[in-house]
Amino acid sequence: MAKTKQVSNKAVEAEQGNDAHRGRVTSYDVAAHAGVSQSAVSRCFKPGASVSKKMRDRVMKAVEELGYRPNAIARGLITRRSNMVGVIVSNLNFYPEVLSELNKRFISRGVHVLLFALDQESDVGSILEQLWQYPVDGVVAAAHLTPEQIALFDERGVPLVFYNRAYQDVPVSSVCCDQSEGERMLVSQLAGSGKHKDFGIIAGPRDSVVSMQRTEGALARLKELGFDQVNVVSGDYTYESGRRAIGKLLEARGEMPDAIICANDMMAMGCMDELRFKHDLDVPGDVSVVGFDGVKAAAWASFNLTTVTQPVESMAEAVVTMLLDRIDNDGLPPEKRTFSGVLRSGGSIRQ
Amino acid sequence: MAKTKQVSNKAVEAEQGNDAHRGRVTSYDVAAHAGVSQSAVSRCFKPGASVSKKMRDRVMKAVEELGYRPNAIARGLITRRSNMVGVIVSNLNFYPEVLSELNKRFISRGVHVLLFALDQESDVGSILEQLWQYPVDGVVAAAHLTPEQIALFDERGVPLVFYNRAYQDVPVSSVCCDQSEGERMLVSQLAGSGKHKDFGIIAGPRDSVVSMQRTEGALARLKELGFDQVNVVSGDYTYESGRRAIGKLLEARGEMPDAIICANDMMAMGCMDELRFKHDLDVPGDVSVVGFDGVKAAAWASFNLTTVTQPVESMAEAVVTMLLDRIDNDGLPPEKRTFSGVLRSGGSIRQ
Repeated sequence: MAKTKQVSNKAVEAEQGNDAHRGRVTSYDVAAHAGVSQSAVSRCFKPGASVSKKMRDRVMKAVEELGYRPNAIARGLITRRSNMVGVIVSNLNFYPEVLSELNKRFISRGVHVLLFALDQESDVGSILEQLWQYPVDGVVAAAHLTPEQIALFDERGVPLVFYNRAYQDVPVSSVCCDQSEGERMLVSQLAGSGKHKDFGIIAGPRDSVVSMQRTEGALARLKELGFDQVNVVSGDYTYESGRRAIGKLLEARGEMPDAIICANDMMAMGCMDELRFKHDLDVPGDVSVVGFDGVKAAAWASFNLTTVTQPVESMAEAVVTMLLDRIDNDGLPPEKRTFSGVLRSGGSIRQ
Repeated sequence: MAKTKQVSNKAVEAEQGNDAHRGRVTSYDVAAHAGVSQSAVSRCFKPGASVSKKMRDRVMKAVEELGYRPNAIARGLITRRSNMVGVIVSNLNFYPEVLSELNKRFISRGVHVLLFALDQESDVGSILEQLWQYPVDGVVAAAHLTPEQIALFDERGVPLVFYNRAYQDVPVSSVCCDQSEGERMLVSQLAGSGKHKDFGIIAGPRDSVVSMQRTEGALARLKELGFDQVNVVSGDYTYESGRRAIGKLLEARGEMPDAIICANDMMAMGCMDELRFKHDLDVPGDVSVVGFDGVKAAAWASFNLTTVTQPVESMAEAVVTMLLDRIDNDGLPPEKRTFSGVLRSGGSIRQ
């Protein structure tokens, strides 16, 4: 009892301190206006607290008349929640849809997103330094963290769920698209047409686990089908690197492959543009190209790319649910969830 | 003196409340470890507070050994700052670059972004309800607010700067690209080639002030050049709506215009794809197309769009500076800054 009261006072003081500064209406103003005690006002905003209907009506009338808004941070000192979660994304330009889906779903549950966007994966360390300064209830990471960085979350008791970053042998929660299965579907499509003999792969950055899983999935399926002479070059997931990779593939094998498997859609679109506008080749007439992700532009008529679409909505919903469950209950064990991608048959494979 | 002390105590209590929960190292742990008082630790993190070098070294050694991080929210109760700003964006998919630039610049100044993304402009009301629950130091809005909504910021003393949303007759700060000037440049380019007689315009949503300014700029320049029979149809800024708008233009005038001016790049790319893949027309051979914004995809070889590039970096820098200046000094008057766009000459105008 004494403890609750003390915490509640802190919240009240925090609210006073903050709102006095802003000229905001405080719970004290509401109390004075309604002719009740401040603690009665406070109880009206405390989940599960006992308040008579008469008292509640009286307070709510004053709340409405004064335009009072309870302060989420101050309230957090009561509930031990800030109702803020951190979202770390490694490259915002690749993730607008993911961030949009996460944000929408958190907001619908009364939780807000404090954004930590990286220019480069190597900035994670300094981002975490900053993150620890905020009382976030939990964190979604769409970026790679080291096992040491992950351990800090455990130590600090801050729940963490990864978006599309898988960790083997690290007990951490994640939601992923099945990269390997997706690539196997794409290779099977390419092989199924019977028109391809020479395969090339444009992988992502060398330190990307997602790229590694996609590339290994493609290579494994190609090997099963009897294709074991496959050139692999690397890009950095951007359109421009997809264009440059064509030159690397040409250099590596002396001639253009007749099918190119790209680790993401952005590189696949760069690759298509390079084939068409630099080498005057037809896609898919001369060269077939496949991507991965299912970004919006991949479906545009200029590309009509055959790709595997990540189920972003299901994945975002899973991440949000998993994180909020772990904020509510810190005894839940780490869980890994993997969603199958959906093959999008475009017009970029020769038939 | 008494007041400062009281506020400082609140901060300390907030920190205790929060960090005890998280198992984080608190300033009390640091004090015990260093063998000094908690207030000495606190002074080391308070800008401008007097601390001897010996004391600072002693505290910082303990800080390092324990891995202590001062809590930004708790510190905010001392400095009257949360070091968080709200960023409202109307459609995240259009704004990844803007959000990325804003985020990077705020972070480099020790300020973090609490994200409020809208699915529809009409959600602004409910977003603001939520925003008032957080102690943000200021807000950047890349969305349209009503004058009544803007007035609430003044009342609450929360600085507000608009990104690319202009208000005439409303004393509010904003950073904009010169929409009208940009459109005039584009029309001059089209007219300069001497190859166009029939102009069509694909405007943005009817409630978009940016679209209105762009469309009026284009119409005014066309009129000066003697073209006053111009059909205007509307899209919703998406690629798909650019495709659909071609049908509307055809319907409106019975034949295809020979130059189409689109209120943004996304619609221009949809328009190009519809002309090429639905109507089998060449761009720019049969129809010239121009856009606005300078998004990355506009420069891809498939489009190579002639457009006006918004100086996103300069605009983001201006917004961040203006907002932080107003957080530091609430006496600064509203200011409107307008940056010229940069003409990007692509290959989508017939020469």
